[in-house]
Amino acid sequence: MSVDEDERGDRDDFESVVAAARERIDPDEAERERLRAVADRLTERAEAAATERCPDADVIQVGSSARGTWISGDRDIDIFVRFPPELDRETLETYGLEVGHATVPDGHEEYAEHPYVKGTVDGFDIDVVPCFRLESATEIRSAVDRTPFHNRYLQNRLDEELAADVRLTKGFMKGVGVYGSDLRTRGFSGYLTELLVCEYGGFRELLEAAADWQPPIELDPEDHGRESFADPLVVIDPTDPERNVAAVCAADNVARFQHYAREFLEAPRTDPFDADAPDPLTESELRDHLERRGTTPVALRFDAPDLVPDQLYPQLRKSLAGVTDGLVDRGFDVFRGTTFADETAVLFVELAVAERPAVEHHRGPPVQVRTHAEGFYDAYADDTDVYGPFITEDRYVAERPREFTTARGFLGSDRLFDVGLGAHVETALETDYTVLTDDDITALCEEFGRELRRYFEPKP
Amino acid sequence: MSVDEDERGDRDDFESVVAAARERIDPDEAERERLRAVADRLTERAEAAATERCPDADVIQVGSSARGTWISGDRDIDIFVRFPPELDRETLETYGLEVGHATVPDGHEEYAEHPYVKGTVDGFDIDVVPCFRLESATEIRSAVDRTPFHNRYLQNRLDEELAADVRLTKGFMKGVGVYGSDLRTRGFSGYLTELLVCEYGGFRELLEAAADWQPPIELDPEDHGRESFADPLVVIDPTDPERNVAAVCAADNVARFQHYAREFLEAPRTDPFDADAPDPLTESELRDHLERRGTTPVALRFDAPDLVPDQLYPQLRKSLAGVTDGLVDRGFDVFRGTTFADETAVLFVELAVAERPAVEHHRGPPVQVRTHAEGFYDAYADDTDVYGPFITEDRYVAERPREFTTARGFLGSDRLFDVGLGAHVETALETDYTVLTDDDITALCEEFGRELRRYFEPKP
Repeated sequence: MSVDEDERGDRDDFESVVAAARERIDPDEAERERLRAVADRLTERAEAAATERCPDADVIQVGSSARGTWISGDRDIDIFVRFPPELDRETLETYGLEVGHATVPDGHEEYAEHPYVKGTVDGFDIDVVPCFRLESATEIRSAVDRTPFHNRYLQNRLDEELAADVRLTKGFMKGVGVYGSDLRTRGFSGYLTELLVCEYGGFRELLEAAADWQPPIELDPEDHGRESFADPLVVIDPTDPERNVAAVCAADNVARFQHYAREFLEAPRTDPFDADAPDPLTESELRDHLERRGTTPVALRFDAPDLVPDQLYPQLRKSLAGVTDGLVDRGFDVFRGTTFADETAVLFVELAVAERPAVEHHRGPPVQVRTHAEGFYDAYADDTDVYGPFITEDRYVAERPREFTTARGFLGSDRLFDVGLGAHVETALETDYTVLTDDDITALCEEFGRELRRYFEPKP
Repeated sequence: MSVDEDERGDRDDFESVVAAARERIDPDEAERERLRAVADRLTERAEAAATERCPDADVIQVGSSARGTWISGDRDIDIFVRFPPELDRETLETYGLEVGHATVPDGHEEYAEHPYVKGTVDGFDIDVVPCFRLESATEIRSAVDRTPFHNRYLQNRLDEELAADVRLTKGFMKGVGVYGSDLRTRGFSGYLTELLVCEYGGFRELLEAAADWQPPIELDPEDHGRESFADPLVVIDPTDPERNVAAVCAADNVARFQHYAREFLEAPRTDPFDADAPDPLTESELRDHLERRGTTPVALRFDAPDLVPDQLYPQLRKSLAGVTDGLVDRGFDVFRGTTFADETAVLFVELAVAERPAVEHHRGPPVQVRTHAEGFYDAYADDTDVYGPFITEDRYVAERPREFTTARGFLGSDRLFDVGLGAHVETALETDYTVLTDDDITALCEEFGRELRRYFEPKP
């Protein structure tokens, strides 16, 4: 087989796999018709309610449902109600909520940067969000004001074919776990994904570019960027030269997308498009992993703080880092760790070293530094719990009792609160927590079996 | 009590303690008479034998016995036979050995830089050493040629009182364990001690200076030094401007002398002059220490290489450092260690961590470095013994089986020979060695009980 035939073979594979994926990802005509009908009906309702209050208001559909870039099964409709910038903020909020309730009679109010109404109509999740209608995205007063600019920019660029490739890319990113700019995932936002597909010209072109990315990657579609960013992926917002659209996207998700891009180009398969959650890890599987690994698991479990995920996960990660530092500082080497949350929250740490001797080195000052040296020596010389002080090199050394000889001892003590913890995690721990070790860990399988399988059977 | 009275009280304590120490340290008249008689008789014998062969030869008594600086019980007499520098080296060696045998009929030949005769006469240990008689110490051809210059320099400076203080200082240094320039002790040589007493003007003056030493200390009695040295204590040889007399003296012995100097000045006691070896540590005491410390002892025991101590101990120390590095590199943290030798030799290590998990992190290249990254991923992706590769930050990580999960496993393997070992120690280990762990360690008590007490009950 010649190289040309070989390449053509790969291309055929690629196209056939992509075609199969599109079958599952693209909404069919009926689904699109249903969504369009609901969206149009609600837009009309919102327009009536808005112009009644403010004749100069208008209403636009935004987001993936407005641009044809939503994936089959997604059921989000975003309706933005734009008021003139002369309106004061308080009136905008009042009108916004009134219009929202008129549009989604069963809706409830939510609070992001400012309040909006969220609800369900005919099985679709509806957001009705008030914002200011501005001349330029650089004048925005809150993040939602930016959305209409994003919408207009993309609508001008996305033809049918690119919109289809956006859907395909989203499906791929979801499947490999890098989709979502929430602070739990720290991956690729919808807007970022659409920009990348536009910028590179399609799904395949994006994968081919990503396969050879040399982070930091810097894209500036409008060539108007003025700031520099330390992020591994920088995409200057076409509607705002001072903003990196990919600011939330963590290095591991950039690397992960790169990995799966290479893998898919080399051997196209449909499974990256399969985002099914894994089966929960069973207790006996967990035991098998721990026995095979020879590590010592420890977990702090407590009632999950009542926070939205975008607040909770950063706090959990900060707390995990703090607990890890606290353990490592005391000689309990950490092998790996993670954090989960549902009803309860867990800081999970796998230890390489779970016990330490009863003594620790305490290195004193050089003997020549007389005042300090004598102070150190006198402090320990008559302490029968201490070995030494003796001299090593030019210094006194004492071997004194170690505060904690087990990781569990440290985690169960008040010294836990000396480490850096997220504020609400700290409060939750102060209320109550359990330290799970060894076989107790299996108690986590019921609530966190899926997370445990991801942890113990890690994929790129 | 006024300050003056207080000081006078301390001084009285000091003087009375020193007087008691002198009682034990100073040889009495009978001892000195015996030594003098033997030394004079042997010197005459040596002179007769030397001038018979070379009329221009002469004989001198050197060393502490010649200068009245020996301690009661020392039984060394050093006789140097000086030949004119015109003599060729081979003839000097022949004559030297002949004179030696004539002087000490039961003597045997030993080999330092060149051969000499050593033997016992009337209970004294006699060295008869040939050397060249030179104009200046800078012309020396071997280290022994320097000795007559040292002898002359000190004899010109040591009066009765200083000689007595040299004896006192030696007794003190022996008692606190810093006396001896052999490479096991790495402490203060006799010549260095005599120079220090001369330079500071006495025992008390030396202690007072040492109590406030700020290493590096630089003394140059003849003010002729031209080199700079990195040692903590530098005493330029009055007979050789390029030589640091204290080059062998290690930082810990300088610090140790400083420590005991302060302690003695503050509360003079006779026990520093007491050099009695400690009682051997018993097996049950050893077990008690290990239980109290919670450490894991391991020891490599093997036949001691047939080397003089000045060659053996540096090799043992190098080997201990190599084994320590090998353990630490593999995650077996070392708490403390030491080395002993007698019939057998031992590298003794007390571990803080004796076991590790069955897996280890293997950090791969950044995913963006495509060729390396793909090579790493492909090497592990299908290995069922490996967890991952997965992505952390921007890199692949694999969790692969660890080569050694116990320190004992490493010490019993061929990988032991990858670490830096002294050449003769390596040969001895290649022949045979035993790994002792846990309670097996008590087997060391019989041969190394004293060393084990020094290790487990360390003094400054």
